[in-house]
Amino acid sequence: MNAYIGRPISVAFVGGDVGQWRIDSIRSVAGDSLPDAKRLAVFEQNLENVSTGSAWILRGSTSNARYTFQKEAEALSEAQEGLGRPQATCAALIPVRKSSAWWSLAQDQRRSIFEDQSHHIRIGLEYLPGVSRRLHHGRELGEPFDFLTWFEYSPEDSEAFENLVARLRQTTEWGFVDREVDVRLSRTSRPQLS
Amino acid sequence: MNAYIGRPISVAFVGGDVGQWRIDSIRSVAGDSLPDAKRLAVFEQNLENVSTGSAWILRGSTSNARYTFQKEAEALSEAQEGLGRPQATCAALIPVRKSSAWWSLAQDQRRSIFEDQSHHIRIGLEYLPGVSRRLHHGRELGEPFDFLTWFEYSPEDSEAFENLVARLRQTTEWGFVDREVDVRLSRTSRPQLS
Repeated sequence: MNAYIGRPISVAFVGGDVGQWRIDSIRSVAGDSLPDAKRLAVFEQNLENVSTGSAWILRGSTSNARYTFQKEAEALSEAQEGLGRPQATCAALIPVRKSSAWWSLAQDQRRSIFEDQSHHIRIGLEYLPGVSRRLHHGRELGEPFDFLTWFEYSPEDSEAFENLVARLRQTTEWGFVDREVDVRLSRTSRPQLS
Repeated sequence: MNAYIGRPISVAFVGGDVGQWRIDSIRSVAGDSLPDAKRLAVFEQNLENVSTGSAWILRGSTSNARYTFQKEAEALSEAQEGLGRPQATCAALIPVRKSSAWWSLAQDQRRSIFEDQSHHIRIGLEYLPGVSRRLHHGRELGEPFDFLTWFEYSPEDSEAFENLVARLRQTTEWGFVDREVDVRLSRTSRPQLS
């Protein structure tokens, strides 16, 4: 029912010269971009080993879903596939920060904007199982981004993925995004995240 | 409307031999207790200075409210007073961990248990402004406790505070608590948290 039933997973996305993912582009959608980097390494849990000689490190943690209702969680669970599919050689890392106006809203107000007005869950569901995703929270870690969403998809699903992010960026919810960077990646070797 | 409109505050509660708060008792309510300690020091934001020679360190971060609806947030905001009131010389630190059964529930299921069935917000509201509180989240920090709630009240409100925690512990929500420690504290000097 919930993709993250276990304890949260701490993750570090490290942009630099090493890592299984080649960085194809880094583009600011809103606010400051990130420094250039050639490759991305993804670390889980044992973050003591994370290289500090890198261009940038973004940290986050998986968590329970904050807005998803039971019926939606069931629909997502039935439709989605995990990370690390061999054919999913394309990835996107989309760090997002939301404004203080968003964070000052109560739970019912945020849920209303998120789903009733913006259909965030319903739109994402349309792109399953082709586009896998995992959300990481950074706000309570003191990170510059509130959310780091990691997407994986096959080259055949690239157009669908562009359509997904374009639709989300037109929503009322996205009016509360005050910083967003779009990092696109690819790999030829075996999957790294499992 | 929301008590934590600014960025989250990182907090460390350090049990040991130093700190403004005298520890009067440490008691397990469910699961393992915490080691004995004489005093508690509370650090905010600059956690690099936190002593590692202490008996225990519990970390958490303030965040946005996860279940409170707009009308409830407004009622809380009107009724509550902040931490650090001079007359509030009693405190309690109640670290709580909830079960995986809780965390696997969807948002609407958790909200239903939290408020519709357990009246967590409504009960807390009855004890304002006498009992001030601040909630800290530790789950995404990899901490042993999901929540650290810090309460401050005057000696005159001690009986009311006992009543508050007794009522909450009888709720359906509390059936999902699998570890809970109750630390009681007092001070004679000026308030530390502001």
